Amino acid sequence: MSTKHFFPSTDGVVVLGLEALVARNNHLELDVANKVVHSKTHDRSKVSVISGGGSGHEPAWSGYVGDGMLAAAVNGEVFASPSTKQVMAAIKHAPSDAGIILCITNYTGDNLHFGLAREKAAGMGHKVAILRMTDDVALGRKQTENTGRRGLAANMFVLKLCGAAAEFGYDFEKCMIIGEAVNANAVTVGSSLDHCHIPGREHHRSVPDNTYVLGMGIHNEPGLHEKSPMPPVEEIVSDMLKYCLDSNDKDRAFVEFKPGDVVCLLINNFGGMSDFETEALTTVSRKVLEKEWKMKPTRIYQSRFETSLNAPGWSISLLNVSGIERTSGTSVYTLLHLLDSDTKAPAWPKNGYREIRAPKTATSVGAEGTQEEAKQKSPQIDPANIEAGLRSACAAAIKAEPDLTKWDVQMGDGDCGEAVESMCKNIVKTLDTGLCKSGALFSILDEIEVAVEEIGGTLAAIISIILASWTSNLKLAFAKDEGGFEMDIHRASRAAGRALQSLMGYTSARQGGRTVMDALIPFCETLEREGDLGKAVEAAEEGARGTGGMKAKFGRATYVGEQSAEAQAGAPPDPGAMAAAIFLRGLLEGMQK
Amino acid sequence: MSTKHFFPSTDGVVVLGLEALVARNNHLELDVANKVVHSKTHDRSKVSVISGGGSGHEPAWSGYVGDGMLAAAVNGEVFASPSTKQVMAAIKHAPSDAGIILCITNYTGDNLHFGLAREKAAGMGHKVAILRMTDDVALGRKQTENTGRRGLAANMFVLKLCGAAAEFGYDFEKCMIIGEAVNANAVTVGSSLDHCHIPGREHHRSVPDNTYVLGMGIHNEPGLHEKSPMPPVEEIVSDMLKYCLDSNDKDRAFVEFKPGDVVCLLINNFGGMSDFETEALTTVSRKVLEKEWKMKPTRIYQSRFETSLNAPGWSISLLNVSGIERTSGTSVYTLLHLLDSDTKAPAWPKNGYREIRAPKTATSVGAEGTQEEAKQKSPQIDPANIEAGLRSACAAAIKAEPDLTKWDVQMGDGDCGEAVESMCKNIVKTLDTGLCKSGALFSILDEIEVAVEEIGGTLAAIISIILASWTSNLKLAFAKDEGGFEMDIHRASRAAGRALQSLMGYTSARQGGRTVMDALIPFCETLEREGDLGKAVEAAEEGARGTGGMKAKFGRATYVGEQSAEAQAGAPPDPGAMAAAIFLRGLLEGMQK
Repeated sequence: MSTKHFFPSTDGVVVLGLEALVARNNHLELDVANKVVHSKTHDRSKVSVISGGGSGHEPAWSGYVGDGMLAAAVNGEVFASPSTKQVMAAIKHAPSDAGIILCITNYTGDNLHFGLAREKAAGMGHKVAILRMTDDVALGRKQTENTGRRGLAANMFVLKLCGAAAEFGYDFEKCMIIGEAVNANAVTVGSSLDHCHIPGREHHRSVPDNTYVLGMGIHNEPGLHEKSPMPPVEEIVSDMLKYCLDSNDKDRAFVEFKPGDVVCLLINNFGGMSDFETEALTTVSRKVLEKEWKMKPTRIYQSRFETSLNAPGWSISLLNVSGIERTSGTSVYTLLHLLDSDTKAPAWPKNGYREIRAPKTATSVGAEGTQEEAKQKSPQIDPANIEAGLRSACAAAIKAEPDLTKWDVQMGDGDCGEAVESMCKNIVKTLDTGLCKSGALFSILDEIEVAVEEIGGTLAAIISIILASWTSNLKLAFAKDEGGFEMDIHRASRAAGRALQSLMGYTSARQGGRTVMDALIPFCETLEREGDLGKAVEAAEEGARGTGGMKAKFGRATYVGEQSAEAQAGAPPDPGAMAAAIFLRGLLEGMQK
Repeated sequence: MSTKHFFPSTDGVVVLGLEALVARNNHLELDVANKVVHSKTHDRSKVSVISGGGSGHEPAWSGYVGDGMLAAAVNGEVFASPSTKQVMAAIKHAPSDAGIILCITNYTGDNLHFGLAREKAAGMGHKVAILRMTDDVALGRKQTENTGRRGLAANMFVLKLCGAAAEFGYDFEKCMIIGEAVNANAVTVGSSLDHCHIPGREHHRSVPDNTYVLGMGIHNEPGLHEKSPMPPVEEIVSDMLKYCLDSNDKDRAFVEFKPGDVVCLLINNFGGMSDFETEALTTVSRKVLEKEWKMKPTRIYQSRFETSLNAPGWSISLLNVSGIERTSGTSVYTLLHLLDSDTKAPAWPKNGYREIRAPKTATSVGAEGTQEEAKQKSPQIDPANIEAGLRSACAAAIKAEPDLTKWDVQMGDGDCGEAVESMCKNIVKTLDTGLCKSGALFSILDEIEVAVEEIGGTLAAIISIILASWTSNLKLAFAKDEGGFEMDIHRASRAAGRALQSLMGYTSARQGGRTVMDALIPFCETLEREGDLGKAVEAAEEGARGTGGMKAKFGRATYVGEQSAEAQAGAPPDPGAMAAAIFLRGLLEGMQK
């Protein structure tokens, strides 16, 4: 567990955070003294849904304030309930003639302070009720008979559905019935790799390596049990789902799920998990749910809904929408409509479940692919000559592999010789299919390019680019000038000059940088200027040999802040540049035979 | 740096993650083989904006696919460019008759693979261009003259504005001009407490304690420099902003900011920061920007826009909208309109900058507060009697403080005696203001309740709740029956029974649990049943004394998974219960005098 933070303590941090939320949402207002965020646009003819609790769970709960969800949220200090005075302020900021629902997680401090506020508000003549959110299934009935179950991330479903019902103008009783039914049909279980750490507080015990905690809460409460070594992720998910769904677990089985019930899945990131892993865990959860429980969730949500600061954990929540229908009498259709309805609350995800319409012009244009798929027109060249050239070039470069490797081991990561050999062998393999027989220049060039590109890596990418660009330039000239086009050294030279320009747009490497460019630049420039392949090859060779003793300048190493300036005199030539020169010499010799 | 993960390596994780994104967004489709996420609704008469790069930066870039932003995104493995073949697939999935813009961050692999794809696509007849995003200012001109600057989180501005321009039907050239102008007017600098860790890879060097890195990139590249000890957060922000804005830093000063320019601020969480801290850093950034640079950002964004797995870092980006106007000729008004326009892209934040309308019925109802603020009607009681009772009760409880403390030190956290003393002293202070003189029962009760509540803590909350609830019940009876209402022991007893019921709704503690409830429950039940204050006080005393030797059952300790079952025989009585009994005895005696 990292105990590093930008803020040395939590002093003042809650308000700074709420100020940021409100600064970028015109519909929100902050009562600084009471740490209450409320909606400026709440319509008092509608039920006010209010929530809150300790801070450290951002975006909960202030991120859920906005039409269609909460009218106000009240925030305590980190992991500490807001006071009754703060809750009273929230009630005052979210007035309603239809009634006020205080949605709270079932922790001791929240129960008391929101409870007292309810009593006081009722004494002032408000219609006000408390709705307890209690979806945790990590602890069974026996362990929670006194305190009740905890509220975890499924309380987002209560806030969304209750808030949407209020927005749709449902009366107080109906909002309460729906809210209670949502809670009664929701289950959550969390698991985590470690605890979170509160800025400025003492270090909590770390969870050991190769161990995870099942049933972790969101306030560093110990979980149900630790498991070590880490099982495969599918097993972890399978275990978590059993706590949610196993009807034979008599101490749990808090919610009945019948075959065919409409369910929603919600994955909550505790705050410190990468989205990279959490997104993947969402898919694993979906797949295990389908495989082991035959459930296909109708809606899936994944976000940081209710965090535990930066804890590296997550939770699975399931909502039985059919169960809510059975309990509340509100249809599944309406409930999904409420779930999907828009809300201004910034932290509720965008609705990804809208019906989509096909794009207006998608079918009107069928041109796509005609150039790619139809057999392309191409100038003809001498099949034997091009094949001899390519085979000679590949043979020369393959033969040079030991030298290339040796040089690269001295100055690089040692894989250059192997990469060159792979490219050339792949070209030979393509030639072996009878590629050149047609004599169709563009098909031959396209296939060679693909053979090089398939190898991957920087060198292959550079060779592919210059080859593809050279081909593109020839194709454009051919398309423009079809009747009069003849493939000769002048066409080839002009296209080489342009291809070099394109390539230099994609790499910042230039002459003197100890890369393949030390061969390619003089080659193309000489070819363009002289229209003579022999002179161009000589220029490439000269450039390549000149890389001996040069210092590397390009690549990600140069992003390093304070670069060590090692002297590199006496270095061998750059293997990439040498490979290019050797290949080009081989090409020339093969074509001259 | 934590090296713990749920996935043992990155094998297959990229696709699992993309599947989750697509599963919950109807408008998205996934080409699994090529790791391309594309929009199903892209209109090919509009420019296609495509982006992509290595994975590990989620939600970038697939989370930005949707009308109004990207037509497709292409994903490599973690921190590795996608191949040219993958980029070609993205181009194929996002066809456009208006042209294709490939927005890429300026890393070597991306330059080459997207570059090659551009060449190939151009050869097929596509109108296609590359737009390089290069907003980093950590490294100056000298260090980046060869490789160019890196793309960091401000590239979100390029994607949003270019994508919105495409959605609005702007032509290819205009989209490119806007995109290039956005990039030319954007700056970003990052800072981090540590590196990120890639599942299954070797451990990277950790950043030492009490140290942060300025200029950290999003691929674990070393930053510009490390600073230790950690300065105050305002200093860190101040330092970061200098890199972005100092026009005297000739090696940087990449973007000109003139007085009065319209600017936007974007705070990017690298993935492992808590929202608690990142939101607060957003406000600190806004304030330092205003104080030191006289800039008030017109738009503020804060999210995990472009992460570095779970790195505990963040970046500040600034966009000069007036600068874009000067460069591109598109007005600030239009640019803000493009920024604020809706997009289906799930990861772009909801627009929090809409004009808000006042709620329909906000002003039509003025009733709010009449009951609270107007002088309330109240039954009259004997001022001397109530004052004597309360002073006697407080004196008795204050006198008992040493015993209460002694008992609580043995079994609890030792602060009970002090809490009781504070409550009573606060009540006495209120009485000293002449509270009882009016004889207005409800005002007296309300003030006493506030005096108790102000002390905070669980015991004060419980006493406040039962008192507030008792008062509320009396108020409701009075409102219903004003003419015939007389405050007597029968009214008091009935209200006490109801108040107890309310209280039991907020705490799960019951008799036998070693809490104040062991006094309050018998007190209220006896009072309700017998209508006799003396008998009720005796019942409270008996209940309180009975807590000696009891085991605690309530509070957050009971959420612990495997609870130790220590025997607690021989324990002293519960100090809370005893305090209540002593207070009530004192009240009775004072009123009888």
